[in-house]
Amino acid sequence: MIRSEIKIRVRYGETDQMGYAYYGVYAQYYEVGRVEAIRLLGFSYKEVEARGILLPVVDFTINYKKPAFYDDEVTIVTSIKQMPEGVKLPFEYECFNAAGELLNSGKVTLVFVQKSNNKITAIPDWFYNALKPYFS
Amino acid sequence: MIRSEIKIRVRYGETDQMGYAYYGVYAQYYEVGRVEAIRLLGFSYKEVEARGILLPVVDFTINYKKPAFYDDEVTIVTSIKQMPEGVKLPFEYECFNAAGELLNSGKVTLVFVQKSNNKITAIPDWFYNALKPYFS
Amino acid sequence: MIRSEIKIRVRYGETDQMGYAYYGVYAQYYEVGRVEAIRLLGFSYKEVEARGILLPVVDFTINYKKPAFYDDEVTIVTSIKQMPEGVKLPFEYECFNAAGELLNSGKVTLVFVQKSNNKITAIPDWFYNALKPYFS
Amino acid sequence: MIRSEIKIRVRYGETDQMGYAYYGVYAQYYEVGRVEAIRLLGFSYKEVEARGILLPVVDFTINYKKPAFYDDEVTIVTSIKQMPEGVKLPFEYECFNAAGELLNSGKVTLVFVQKSNNKITAIPDWFYNALKPYFS
Repeated sequence: MIRSEIKIRVRYGETDQMGYAYYGVYAQYYEVGRVEAIRLLGFSYKEVEARGILLPVVDFTINYKKPAFYDDEVTIVTSIKQMPEGVKLPFEYECFNAAGELLNSGKVTLVFVQKSNNKITAIPDWFYNALKPYFS
Repeated sequence: MIRSEIKIRVRYGETDQMGYAYYGVYAQYYEVGRVEAIRLLGFSYKEVEARGILLPVVDFTINYKKPAFYDDEVTIVTSIKQMPEGVKLPFEYECFNAAGELLNSGKVTLVFVQKSNNKITAIPDWFYNALKPYFS
Repeated sequence: MIRSEIKIRVRYGETDQMGYAYYGVYAQYYEVGRVEAIRLLGFSYKEVEARGILLPVVDFTINYKKPAFYDDEVTIVTSIKQMPEGVKLPFEYECFNAAGELLNSGKVTLVFVQKSNNKITAIPDWFYNALKPYFS
Repeated sequence: MIRSEIKIRVRYGETDQMGYAYYGVYAQYYEVGRVEAIRLLGFSYKEVEARGILLPVVDFTINYKKPAFYDDEVTIVTSIKQMPEGVKLPFEYECFNAAGELLNSGKVTLVFVQKSNNKITAIPDWFYNALKPYFS
């Protein structure tokens, strides 16, 4: 499997008037997490787009256990647990605070889209080959 | 059931470099939707907090069918389909573009929290009584 | 001069833990304001881009007098006070709350950029001609 | 003077359909910059609030020279150039890309506010004393 960890700090502008990191901000945190997970493959998400592939999100689920607060350091653990087949790329997430408490867990599924014609496409060979060593 | 509709326009700052309304922005759109749904009960979400109740999100799920684009008018349809019991308040959503195409559908579950002690609490009577006429 | 008014409601996700609409959110509110001001010219900002012109921001200044709070209705007054000449398009702003109190005032200067070569360009004739009737 | 540097990476959700980091996102970047600058004083901005002081923004000015793009590493240089007197705390900023090019420069002025009564107040002694060694 692929597993990456990245730490981010909750920004003031990301809090809401409850004093929580706004529930919607985790869409961005998860995105930061998967960008780092993809970097493990030897290319960046930026390069993926440069190679003509877009990866829009088709499903996003998140279960919140505890809030994060302003200036908290949040560890985002991002995993690809099974070798992707077909057109989809599923990520699993867990966020933890500095005390190691689980803040939330979730899933985001991306789909491979050919930029030139905006059509869903099978996982490109170069992407498949970069993933494969992690699942043997 | 409760059902509300509100139209919002995609802001430039909400687009991403794919030209899509960023997938994370729907957390805010859904929040705008449920705020309008709650207003149907005769009080605002602001008043809910003033009465000592917070409604943080415990679950959020969204399935994306089509992107919205800059300046698109998006209709957010928000529903409470069953009379809430216990501590949770579940909302269902559908977003449509101006052509009536379904952009995405989703669910958000809120939980009643007593502001004074930060504990989960049963739906307050005044909230329950305001909801009840919609489910008879 | 050109003058447009639009009302927006402060979203929960736009508040911060002070309970204020986050200071950075006005960049988006001002953008919403100028999009409506441009619509008065008979075309949308979306069409401006479709005609090959981008309008990135080169200067942004804002002075905050009072905060807006969650669910407040904010009126954004956007003006172009002088006929633009050259390459720049300057907007002036005032935001008011429902009590008519000035929340903040500011300026945003856009610059005309040719999308095809990414170079700064003089105001296009069609844009100039649409503005002119407002400044006679 | 006080001077801090912090690097952040442009998130996908921070880009707009021009492919630029949205002009409004720098309000957050500057906020991240001053939070790090304040940490040099031996306390965090979180502790400032815990000590009963809020620091809302009263002025924000930014001049954009070049855009940042998705996944760019942006260095935010934050400075307090003069010993603050009275009720205001002014920060100056410069953002650079990885090539060392200036992206933008700006100023943000904060004001000391007593949380208990929501009134503007002179710089507290403990804040003044923490700043003083940097300006001798």
